[in-house]
Amino acid sequence: MNTITPRPVDAVIAAVREFLGDRLSTAQAVREQHSRGEDQTPPTLPDAVAFVESTEEVSRILALCHQHGVPVVAFGAGTSLEGHVNPVRRGISLDLSRMNKVLEVNAEDMDCLIEPGVTRQQLNEFLRDQGMFFPVDPGSHCTIGGMCATRASGTNAVRYGTIRENVLGLEVVLADGRVIRTGGRARKASNGYDLTRLFIGSEGTLGVITKVRLRLHGIPEAMSAAVCQFPDLAAAVNTTILTMQSGIPVARIELLDADQMEACIKYSKLEGFRPAPTLFLEFHGTEAGVKEQAEAVEAIASDLGGEGFAWATDAEARNKLWKARHDAYWAAVNFIPGLRGITTDVCVPISRLADAIVGAKEDAIASGLTTCIVGHVGDGNFHQVILFDPNDPAGLDRAWELDRKIVARGLALGGTCSGEHGVGLGKREFLEEEHGAEALAVMRGIKQSFDPKGILNPGKLFRN
Amino acid sequence: MNTITPRPVDAVIAAVREFLGDRLSTAQAVREQHSRGEDQTPPTLPDAVAFVESTEEVSRILALCHQHGVPVVAFGAGTSLEGHVNPVRRGISLDLSRMNKVLEVNAEDMDCLIEPGVTRQQLNEFLRDQGMFFPVDPGSHCTIGGMCATRASGTNAVRYGTIRENVLGLEVVLADGRVIRTGGRARKASNGYDLTRLFIGSEGTLGVITKVRLRLHGIPEAMSAAVCQFPDLAAAVNTTILTMQSGIPVARIELLDADQMEACIKYSKLEGFRPAPTLFLEFHGTEAGVKEQAEAVEAIASDLGGEGFAWATDAEARNKLWKARHDAYWAAVNFIPGLRGITTDVCVPISRLADAIVGAKEDAIASGLTTCIVGHVGDGNFHQVILFDPNDPAGLDRAWELDRKIVARGLALGGTCSGEHGVGLGKREFLEEEHGAEALAVMRGIKQSFDPKGILNPGKLFRN
Repeated sequence: MNTITPRPVDAVIAAVREFLGDRLSTAQAVREQHSRGEDQTPPTLPDAVAFVESTEEVSRILALCHQHGVPVVAFGAGTSLEGHVNPVRRGISLDLSRMNKVLEVNAEDMDCLIEPGVTRQQLNEFLRDQGMFFPVDPGSHCTIGGMCATRASGTNAVRYGTIRENVLGLEVVLADGRVIRTGGRARKASNGYDLTRLFIGSEGTLGVITKVRLRLHGIPEAMSAAVCQFPDLAAAVNTTILTMQSGIPVARIELLDADQMEACIKYSKLEGFRPAPTLFLEFHGTEAGVKEQAEAVEAIASDLGGEGFAWATDAEARNKLWKARHDAYWAAVNFIPGLRGITTDVCVPISRLADAIVGAKEDAIASGLTTCIVGHVGDGNFHQVILFDPNDPAGLDRAWELDRKIVARGLALGGTCSGEHGVGLGKREFLEEEHGAEALAVMRGIKQSFDPKGILNPGKLFRN
Repeated sequence: MNTITPRPVDAVIAAVREFLGDRLSTAQAVREQHSRGEDQTPPTLPDAVAFVESTEEVSRILALCHQHGVPVVAFGAGTSLEGHVNPVRRGISLDLSRMNKVLEVNAEDMDCLIEPGVTRQQLNEFLRDQGMFFPVDPGSHCTIGGMCATRASGTNAVRYGTIRENVLGLEVVLADGRVIRTGGRARKASNGYDLTRLFIGSEGTLGVITKVRLRLHGIPEAMSAAVCQFPDLAAAVNTTILTMQSGIPVARIELLDADQMEACIKYSKLEGFRPAPTLFLEFHGTEAGVKEQAEAVEAIASDLGGEGFAWATDAEARNKLWKARHDAYWAAVNFIPGLRGITTDVCVPISRLADAIVGAKEDAIASGLTTCIVGHVGDGNFHQVILFDPNDPAGLDRAWELDRKIVARGLALGGTCSGEHGVGLGKREFLEEEHGAEALAVMRGIKQSFDPKGILNPGKLFRN
């Protein structure tokens, strides 16, 4: 009997197929591609994948899902590391990657309006000739819609802020299909509740973002990169802390520990470096300003035993370095053949960073697991890729156990479980400790107000 | 009969008096002091004023007001220009000005924890010896709690951001007395809904802020101020536009039109200036950086006819200039003896700033009313103080009519009705046009979720 009872999702699929045609797919391979992100969660196949091309299509699909109580999970490039795009309660995976048009660029106001499937690389290629760039750079080939949904940041956040500071406004489709605009083109406003910031970091649980208005920045007159290697992890972290406390406006300051450097040297064929704790830096400004900044950091690093402060002012050498940095995650997960990785995302106040990182590495060594640390240390944020053997039945559990230990230490140091990857499935268990039960109840109240039927990315952010 | 029926507020007053003693006042003079801010709304006397000294007292009072359905209006320094603190439905005025302790300063992390009644001047005096400052500077003697509630900004926002970018977290008492913490000490986080940003700018309608954790900034190595006068308003505005578009990181760039300059010369006894459109600038950075920035702006200003680009690097001359700028509102409202003023708060994209300001001045001239324009023009934000005769029965209405015209022009240029003063009573009528009915309905849904009985600052932000 059960097999012939029509499911609510079948009604949605039939109705959506009428206007989406073959852009609504139930093919096994397509559903598998949308069964999880780059995380290690057990995959779940959605009932169907809808490749949308307009706000109107998103609105019609959400209205149908709302009517029939069918879950909807927004999907961009699938780069989530925390299980955000895994449709744990099945339903429709709403693939926004074809909504990838740059709709407006206003050079005079340094802003632009884009569709959510635009990637940061695509946008920056588009902007290059106009002397502007979009600074938020999580490294992966993610979409900007996904970056908004997870409140992403990355290497440049220490200077230019996270996505939160670089979005002026959004267009959002609500759970029942209504379409709203938030924010505006003015640089600041005090005109009611900050809906823009509420959707940023809401992980697809309050609405589906269909347009984004971004702040842009002028390409600096001068840029230079530098690399410096250290005798131990503490020296590299303390150089970061002193640099930040001195107010030097570094554009990027990234830490790679000895294991991560070894992985990067191998993966990205970096020459001339040792597998030692290393800082990658970038300076933006005028010619004189960049020189002044780099000299100030070099002096701090030298005092702490940093060696071989090497400058790269030409674009090619700089790009090679940053390509290696961006590939650090892949270098780490490919470090030991056959192993896989999960990653932490702890962020602490800068004064506690040495305790957090050195302690996390000690925990890892005690656990017997190999880990690579790479971090946006200017913000106090670091990732520890924990490698585990997928053929060992207890392997993933041991990795999670270490992850929990590192997060607990971060929270005890006044930090957060997630600096930039989001909560998704992976960090739900920490939210109550971090925010307290009452604040979490307030968040649930907001969810209830926006999505009374619970169709938007159910199972994420909250534990049930 | 009616006079002896006990009112719900009487029960609250009796219960609060038990633990607040004579810090709960029903004296006429005290109620009059809490009947409105610095706005021109008709005053309303609260039933009582509670001078609270702790989060616990706030919590107990809110629980009682919630139980009895009695309105509560948070009150700081009473500097609101939009009627926020006017208890239009009476009830309890919750005066937080005695909660004015600096609780923690963390020099290493450049953050601090304060009570909401701390003023920005008080905080900056406290911090001065530690080489740090809090940059958000609306000019008035406002409290930081009030600045959070109205999403305030001011002269430094062009460089350091508004209060929104400078708050790390809050403690908030909810409508029913529950206490929550939002945010944390980490510089960034992706750990659930951004409750901090939701309370910032919520104007006391979602909760009462009882603690604020702020980001601090290092006092720059070098600071210099400059003043430049222009042949006409358009030249001064266009100098601003080009400065911003060139990416020069000015710390302050403030415009005063000819009428405002005349008022300031008179009120602040400024010598050596003509009543002509004028830019006040400030540069922060290293010695070399400050010089570089100032020369770049001087070159732009000269090209556009700016005259007498005068530098002031010594603190005394700089302070005199900024004191005059901070007193600009008082200079304007005292410009013509016997008149009073209301002020606009339009903020537009920078490319539209000349249209907005020059057009607003033409509207004013056509109306026959005297106006003074002063603006945080680097953000596209300007205030036009509209003077009216309080003895003319139609005076205030004529001023509002001009205000509406200036706002309508700002909205048509892609701007907002409020860059930094908030909505309060004065800007409610523009919100639907600005956000659309659906987005406003979403805001109402949030209000309903946080304050189902509607006791928190009722009548503000929304029209009913």
